[in-house]
Amino acid sequence: MRKEIPIVSLLLLLPVFCLGADWKNFRADAKRMEERIKELSKFGANPEGGVSRVAFSDADVAGRKYIRALMEKAGLKVRVDTAGNIIGRREGRNPKLPVILFGSHIDSVPHGGNYDGDVGVLGALECIEVLNQQNYLTSHPLEVIVFADEEGGLTGSHAVAGELSPEALQLKSHSGKTIGEGIRFIGGDPDNLQAARRNPSEILAYLELHIEQGGILEAEKINIGVVEGIVGINVWDVTGLGFANHAGTTPMNQRKDALVAAARLVESVNQIARSIPGRQVATVGKIQAEPGAPNVIPGKVVMSLEIRDLEKSKIDLVFEKVKESAEKIAADTGTIISFTALDVTAVPAPTDPRLRKVIQEAATGLGLTTKLMPSGAGHDAQDIARIAPIGMIFVPSIGGISHSPIEFTTASDVANGASVLMQTILKVDEKGLLGQGG
Amino acid sequence: MRKEIPIVSLLLLLPVFCLGADWKNFRADAKRMEERIKELSKFGANPEGGVSRVAFSDADVAGRKYIRALMEKAGLKVRVDTAGNIIGRREGRNPKLPVILFGSHIDSVPHGGNYDGDVGVLGALECIEVLNQQNYLTSHPLEVIVFADEEGGLTGSHAVAGELSPEALQLKSHSGKTIGEGIRFIGGDPDNLQAARRNPSEILAYLELHIEQGGILEAEKINIGVVEGIVGINVWDVTGLGFANHAGTTPMNQRKDALVAAARLVESVNQIARSIPGRQVATVGKIQAEPGAPNVIPGKVVMSLEIRDLEKSKIDLVFEKVKESAEKIAADTGTIISFTALDVTAVPAPTDPRLRKVIQEAATGLGLTTKLMPSGAGHDAQDIARIAPIGMIFVPSIGGISHSPIEFTTASDVANGASVLMQTILKVDEKGLLGQGG
Repeated sequence: MRKEIPIVSLLLLLPVFCLGADWKNFRADAKRMEERIKELSKFGANPEGGVSRVAFSDADVAGRKYIRALMEKAGLKVRVDTAGNIIGRREGRNPKLPVILFGSHIDSVPHGGNYDGDVGVLGALECIEVLNQQNYLTSHPLEVIVFADEEGGLTGSHAVAGELSPEALQLKSHSGKTIGEGIRFIGGDPDNLQAARRNPSEILAYLELHIEQGGILEAEKINIGVVEGIVGINVWDVTGLGFANHAGTTPMNQRKDALVAAARLVESVNQIARSIPGRQVATVGKIQAEPGAPNVIPGKVVMSLEIRDLEKSKIDLVFEKVKESAEKIAADTGTIISFTALDVTAVPAPTDPRLRKVIQEAATGLGLTTKLMPSGAGHDAQDIARIAPIGMIFVPSIGGISHSPIEFTTASDVANGASVLMQTILKVDEKGLLGQGG
Repeated sequence: MRKEIPIVSLLLLLPVFCLGADWKNFRADAKRMEERIKELSKFGANPEGGVSRVAFSDADVAGRKYIRALMEKAGLKVRVDTAGNIIGRREGRNPKLPVILFGSHIDSVPHGGNYDGDVGVLGALECIEVLNQQNYLTSHPLEVIVFADEEGGLTGSHAVAGELSPEALQLKSHSGKTIGEGIRFIGGDPDNLQAARRNPSEILAYLELHIEQGGILEAEKINIGVVEGIVGINVWDVTGLGFANHAGTTPMNQRKDALVAAARLVESVNQIARSIPGRQVATVGKIQAEPGAPNVIPGKVVMSLEIRDLEKSKIDLVFEKVKESAEKIAADTGTIISFTALDVTAVPAPTDPRLRKVIQEAATGLGLTTKLMPSGAGHDAQDIARIAPIGMIFVPSIGGISHSPIEFTTASDVANGASVLMQTILKVDEKGLLGQGG
């Protein structure tokens, strides 16, 4: 490997001539970003046109190597923390100031697309490229972070927030390795995770650019989503118990059909989520009937229930109504319906109101339209919210499609997002979290 | 093996002293039947108290050996036809007359019970035992038949009706063997199945005693079900296509949730089957949502639809209404619902009205209450209906439970059924299918 003198060291020797006046004109380069998205999509490319770059796979390692090389070429000082997160640092004029941290992830779901996570990482890198081109040195140190294993359960950001449990390390990831083995595979040290934890005083703000993964921005023709917060996600297993019996010999009025009960509840969950004002969502994504033969009345059905909202009280309200409805359905169908909480601890993570304002001003300054909106999907930012103020920037997803090979965001939307990220960083760097004036 | 002189040969040498007068007093022996049911239940006994004596298994072979020994001990001339059916013959006074055939099966479903099929086989044997005890010789030859692989698709009776296809021989049975291999394993000859076919002129009537497998007789406190016919069973795969999307980022009003559509259809199938006057049943027993994750809106659901009735026109009516409902649901939910026929050729098999009358008279003569009813389950009799007049006798299933280790019929109900079978045989033997006078 050729060893280069880090550009940042050279920069420190140069006269600093862009100290605030004209950074408002800095813009991301749409073409460079588009090329890099295309380049990154080669690692783990799947036949459908997306990527299957699951965390801890060979494709993940190859993608990380590509990003790391870009970071080093951009003069960042790169390290991999003990959780496997890649962190590239660009010193500021005042190294004692807390860091402005920004980034996302490059691992994908199986059969995923080329924008989820990637846009945030390449957008973060784009900020560095432009600052380099403009010879602009911030006051605060900047750090670009590529979180490890976002899709497998926010592994890397859990560790940074000091909340990656030993139990989680035993879980099998999509790569076939346990998370512990995977962290070691990508250069981390699962025996020493506390070293990945960041102190709140070290971080001024965390900013993440991401595709919306929903269809609201496109439908409303809005350029930038200013994220209000990341929804809380509560998940249950729902079990309906009836009585399995012969589908030929049991008259309709003598049945205790667990699937008829479950079907009514699926419909009811949908109706309840629609009938309450707000943006809450409730989903039954999984269902299984037992014994599961065409000629046997189902005696048991197990299905999932997931409720998301920005407010925990709203999640609780929807769940209460679903439980009430289930009681009535059970009584009407002669079945028993019960709920087992799988994960009801995930609380909503609001973004920092000051950062929302800075992001909105940055977008407006760029002539872009904005909309305040929740993130219905989980993100690394929700973990970092526990140790630092967070801000998130959304760009439109065509057709609202995500976690799919046909996930797509236009090059100009990608660049808009990176420009907003850059303007936000520079505003925060100059004026702090309130970002006034700028 | 000890070789015995068949009792039937001895009988032919004896003076025949019971020629019709007192056969009306012949009764099955409840205790003997109970003991034999218990004995048979040892072959393939499962820990739950029932049997897993699937066709072509070692347990099936052991059970068949036990029954064959009982047949031989009762003086029957036993053969195994090329389909693996065990047939035990007792000659009549006039060997040129067509046979009165009766029996059932002893194979079970996996995790089945001790009455389905077994009652019919041991009831048939009981008739022979009593006739032997009473030294009663019928005019017609009698044949007890133990059909092979009833639960796996009426294999043995298909062959007797000349309708066991070469394709069916390739199907894998629950035993792990193909049906062809299984037939060979139990002593049949799958290469020579046409030899198992019976000519309509050979059979005067086929009679089958069976447990109801439903809860109607018990609920209505009726001793004997006189079966009107065996329902036709039509089966479809139903596919609902929506659009798989992120359960967090897709607002409720932008979803095309295939499971919400499928759930409405499950409910609708149930409503339709209940709302039409009659005894038709319709069941969704199997359902699968794809991709099947709690955090993904299902894009595809595949489920089964089974409709049964004694009249084909009723099955068609229910299906037409389900299709209409599906069209409306699809339009309302933005999904596409389609139906693939899996087996829509099984037509209802009515029993012979003359035999229904004889059975009812026989039961009444024994002081038993009767009810005319359909058989919601399939039986070997439905195949034999294509080559001979059939009659079926039901006895109550406690709680309507079948295909389960807790399937149960009382010893007195079992004996009642065998007595009705015996009286029916003797009435038909003496008076023909109209059975008048007797």
